[in-house]
Amino acid sequence: MALEWKNLDETDAYPRLRQTDTLVSFADDLSENRVRSWDIPTGAGLNFNFAASSVTETDLKRLQVLADEQQVIEKYTTLLSGERINTGEDRRVLHHLTRGQLGEDVVENGTNLREFYQEQNRRISDFGAKIHAGTITGSTGRKFDTVVQIGIGGSDLGPRALYLALKSAYTPKMKALFISNVDPDDAAEVISQVNPETTLFIIVSKSGTTQETLANRDLILEKVKSSGIAGYDPSKHLVAVTSKTSPLADSDSVLDSFYIDDYIGGRYSSTSAVGGVVLTLALGADVFTSLLSGAHQVDKASLEPDIRKNAVLLDAMIGIFNRNVLGLPCTAVLPYSQALSRFPAHLQQLDMESNGKSVNRSGKEVAYQTGPIVFGEPGTNGQHSFYQLLHQGTDIVPLQFVGFRKSQAGEDVVTDGSTSQSKLNANLAAQIIAFAKGSKNENPNKNFMGMRPSTLLYGERLDAAALSGLLAHFENKVMFQGFCWNLNSFDQEGVQLGKILAKSVLDGSTDDGALKAYSAILGVD
Amino acid sequence: MALEWKNLDETDAYPRLRQTDTLVSFADDLSENRVRSWDIPTGAGLNFNFAASSVTETDLKRLQVLADEQQVIEKYTTLLSGERINTGEDRRVLHHLTRGQLGEDVVENGTNLREFYQEQNRRISDFGAKIHAGTITGSTGRKFDTVVQIGIGGSDLGPRALYLALKSAYTPKMKALFISNVDPDDAAEVISQVNPETTLFIIVSKSGTTQETLANRDLILEKVKSSGIAGYDPSKHLVAVTSKTSPLADSDSVLDSFYIDDYIGGRYSSTSAVGGVVLTLALGADVFTSLLSGAHQVDKASLEPDIRKNAVLLDAMIGIFNRNVLGLPCTAVLPYSQALSRFPAHLQQLDMESNGKSVNRSGKEVAYQTGPIVFGEPGTNGQHSFYQLLHQGTDIVPLQFVGFRKSQAGEDVVTDGSTSQSKLNANLAAQIIAFAKGSKNENPNKNFMGMRPSTLLYGERLDAAALSGLLAHFENKVMFQGFCWNLNSFDQEGVQLGKILAKSVLDGSTDDGALKAYSAILGVD
Repeated sequence: MALEWKNLDETDAYPRLRQTDTLVSFADDLSENRVRSWDIPTGAGLNFNFAASSVTETDLKRLQVLADEQQVIEKYTTLLSGERINTGEDRRVLHHLTRGQLGEDVVENGTNLREFYQEQNRRISDFGAKIHAGTITGSTGRKFDTVVQIGIGGSDLGPRALYLALKSAYTPKMKALFISNVDPDDAAEVISQVNPETTLFIIVSKSGTTQETLANRDLILEKVKSSGIAGYDPSKHLVAVTSKTSPLADSDSVLDSFYIDDYIGGRYSSTSAVGGVVLTLALGADVFTSLLSGAHQVDKASLEPDIRKNAVLLDAMIGIFNRNVLGLPCTAVLPYSQALSRFPAHLQQLDMESNGKSVNRSGKEVAYQTGPIVFGEPGTNGQHSFYQLLHQGTDIVPLQFVGFRKSQAGEDVVTDGSTSQSKLNANLAAQIIAFAKGSKNENPNKNFMGMRPSTLLYGERLDAAALSGLLAHFENKVMFQGFCWNLNSFDQEGVQLGKILAKSVLDGSTDDGALKAYSAILGVD
Repeated sequence: MALEWKNLDETDAYPRLRQTDTLVSFADDLSENRVRSWDIPTGAGLNFNFAASSVTETDLKRLQVLADEQQVIEKYTTLLSGERINTGEDRRVLHHLTRGQLGEDVVENGTNLREFYQEQNRRISDFGAKIHAGTITGSTGRKFDTVVQIGIGGSDLGPRALYLALKSAYTPKMKALFISNVDPDDAAEVISQVNPETTLFIIVSKSGTTQETLANRDLILEKVKSSGIAGYDPSKHLVAVTSKTSPLADSDSVLDSFYIDDYIGGRYSSTSAVGGVVLTLALGADVFTSLLSGAHQVDKASLEPDIRKNAVLLDAMIGIFNRNVLGLPCTAVLPYSQALSRFPAHLQQLDMESNGKSVNRSGKEVAYQTGPIVFGEPGTNGQHSFYQLLHQGTDIVPLQFVGFRKSQAGEDVVTDGSTSQSKLNANLAAQIIAFAKGSKNENPNKNFMGMRPSTLLYGERLDAAALSGLLAHFENKVMFQGFCWNLNSFDQEGVQLGKILAKSVLDGSTDDGALKAYSAILGVD
């Protein structure tokens, strides 16, 4: 079937979807039976419950028609087969291929790219085994026990969120730390915690020229040099994750290089070598393999065209409804798991950098709202904090809850007749109901209006497969929404201008008086 | 002068303010001169620059009229003098008094409450000195080297954000860790990092009955007991921060108790014993004294009625303009300092819990938007991430930048002709200009529309006084906005319903089928 790329407001389905443009009360419909039946698997052992979401049966039918008209699944299939779906940069989009083959072989210049990614994973696994066995040691002969990832944006947020999510679920093989901010205090803080002799630094930059990352590398090299360890050779403590053609690749300044290519966007790179090296070193090759497997399961499940059987597609379409029918500008991601403390920050990047755009994939301005503002913090903390606004504020924010039946560590205690894990999940269940149904009170200050829609992603335990299942769920959700909005979700031109202007300050070439004045009051020299 | 409590839309000033209800282009006006002159001190060595904000000279005049009509400064003065301004809970609001006396003496039942707070600070300082000197040791005779704060919401976010912000600026006297989430993995993760023999736990709960905090205390006691350390006595490793009448106060189960009272709201408690004990133990009494001083300076500067001379009031009024004239629902807080990594989360609580309300202080529903959604992450990370949406998305988000001329650690290196600190601040200056002025490009995908307003709070170096100056700036800003909206910014009824429903799940008393079904799929037993 030929693909047709239409703006959302050019579809026949859109005006029909908008026939109901206010939130219909769903509190009365939120019965035990609906909770049980509006619940479908999303892969990797996770389920998606949409019983408390904003949509009715009628809306669901209309959303199916929209998904079909926008050829969402066909476009996904085309992407999987290596089409240059990233129109802005004229690139393929191949992060799914890092974790499995679902479409046709993607071959470029005689290289099968699936095999290329697999080869990197094998090399990473071999390298990790040697580091763990002490076959490769630091330059002074001591075994490596710490790994520091130096990257920014997608080279940082995803791998960091995944590491933090899993470090208590497995026995770490090495401690992992991360430096991202060009703020010198960020690097100084990490350096103060490590012994250079037993630390391996991973420099992650696709181009090999990322200003912040190279500055942080140099700051570290300077610091190590000044510590004057006899026989210390920095090149034996650095590895690169970069493209084959970058200045970092295979240079004498690094111990080894692992490769990515232009078809893996930063925010989609956690399952490539960008996440692979640090996660394999820190947690072991088996854990990384399990991560690839969980994501692949969800990628595969995402191919189903029926939104009642495809949780990712359903979640995406409910998001379109919230954004373009109900006009709600934000979404909160609320994981009831402390291990997911940085997962909302990763999703914030994933979503806002992918779909925070005003022009379609052909460069034409669109006349509807696109990607929402995404924020979140782990519950139960948020309950004692910003939930106030979510319950009683003047704006409605759709909520995306995440929970797990069991804790990671399994260490728990019964107080007042229940475990902490039961308290945690009782609070999660209670919040869904409180947001949906509210509670009448004759004191208006204690009145809860309810009608605050939410969905719930949940599973048995936050292990590697469940985590990457979550990751792939959101990656594919954002991709599906991009197809509905007719956006290119895979470029990021919006992050460029600031870089250019910053450079013009630093090399003295700017003639913008205001820019010079801001630089002056901020002490830039 | 008698105070008059009016809703925003009952003022004469409001319709006049709304005569201009679209964003006027400020890019052409954003000259070197404006950057230099639209810049005023806010106290504690910090400046507030509003050259790139959304307001014109005319708007500023109208905002002054509104601030005057709503008697914002008079209401602040009344609050300082101990009036029961927290109408919902019939309480005084006295967090300013923890750091200095600005109004009349506040005396209750013969106790001067300023003296009560000062007495707690002296007791904390004495206690800290004994812990640091090893005069008070753990139950097995070893010196304490680690302190763990167990609290949730305001007992966690503020103190944690402040500790993280300062731990690299001073030489820590003890390591501090925090447990907040009832998720048992949160406690397990912290316990795995500490030696019980040398660790002091601080239980923070005003009522002494906070479910999550007591569950975490019990989880820790259980864990320590099972480790079977000979001679270990948990009561010698616990202190309480609580109210004098709470079950935790002065009990045999704790080494000592430090007191707060009902007039210090959780999210405003960082400068009370809630922040005082952990910060004094971790960083020393001098640092905490310096924190009190910085906040007090800003509190004092906040008394000025002229918005062109009172940065806190000006910031508050610009926020009202963004929310109620321009209709913008969100605000992003973007500190260019990695040390402020958790400061946005604290501000998120502070703002959204204070002003995320739909009824006024008399319990009547209001017909205008109140507190915005607040989110943020440190730059420069955000630049490589969600700034895409901020620059090119379909929604405008007003931005609140924070920066410092110098780094905390002073460790830096020159690469490509500039220090990391200069790179950091060049990026900050560049972003302000990029957001304000944009950049035309014939490729619409590379076009930046600009017109994205921002403000900048900046200082010399992020030390204790500057940090608490920032804290007080935002606390007082939120308070002023609450006065404009005629809200009670000091209660939080919106966090109650979830707690009640969670309890009904755990004690089996709920008869809501949907709630039972959610609890079941989440494995609550």
